[in-house]
Amino acid sequence: MTVSAPRTIDIPGLRDGVFPSQCPSRILLDHVTSKWGVLVLLALGIDTLRWSELRRCIDGISEKMLAQTLKTLEADGLVRRVAQPVVPPHVEYNLTEAGQEVHDRLVPLMEWIGANADRIITPER
Amino acid sequence: MTVSAPRTIDIPGLRDGVFPSQCPSRILLDHVTSKWGVLVLLALGIDTLRWSELRRCIDGISEKMLAQTLKTLEADGLVRRVAQPVVPPHVEYNLTEAGQEVHDRLVPLMEWIGANADRIITPER
Repeated sequence: MTVSAPRTIDIPGLRDGVFPSQCPSRILLDHVTSKWGVLVLLALGIDTLRWSELRRCIDGISEKMLAQTLKTLEADGLVRRVAQPVVPPHVEYNLTEAGQEVHDRLVPLMEWIGANADRIITPER
Repeated sequence: MTVSAPRTIDIPGLRDGVFPSQCPSRILLDHVTSKWGVLVLLALGIDTLRWSELRRCIDGISEKMLAQTLKTLEADGLVRRVAQPVVPPHVEYNLTEAGQEVHDRLVPLMEWIGANADRIITPER
């Protein structure tokens, strides 16, 4: 029996064959693909949305999780918070240029999921 | 002041302007973009890997989470478990055709993250 040498695989974010847990890529990946982050980034890809529109759009998200997700994505420079100087005041959110670039890369994934989910996720599971 | 009509946004997975929480797309999205699922799908994109190789590659994953993630992705038909009839026995994992399709859609996202994470995730945060 021979013992195979460690194989070299070349994937973005991989360093010496490992996804290091504390590297910036892993942290940003966690933000972008978080349960709610991915939905916020998808929803804001087409239009500027108000807080209430985002909450309505992302079924099941709590006030707390929406606030936390928006704060993280804003700190990452992916989402822009715009306070409209109107009476009564309201706040809108849209994507920055970087956020739009992430959105554009999430759409093909979501298209595949939309086309295949009904076949994969069957009621009997 | 005018009240704006609900805007129509067209994103895969969106139904009548909402991502419904219990729809198959949301469930599959959760599996594919879960903290560990996305890394397993990325890692298996290049090569078949053994359990121990996957654990080494995905820094920080526990035995329990690796087992649970592989089980979910296998049930979704994205990952294939291959028990090698050798002594001592060992198990390998690779992507199915569907899993490779998901992988191919994760790579552009991960490439963007790899190219931008060092700028976005700064040490002082």
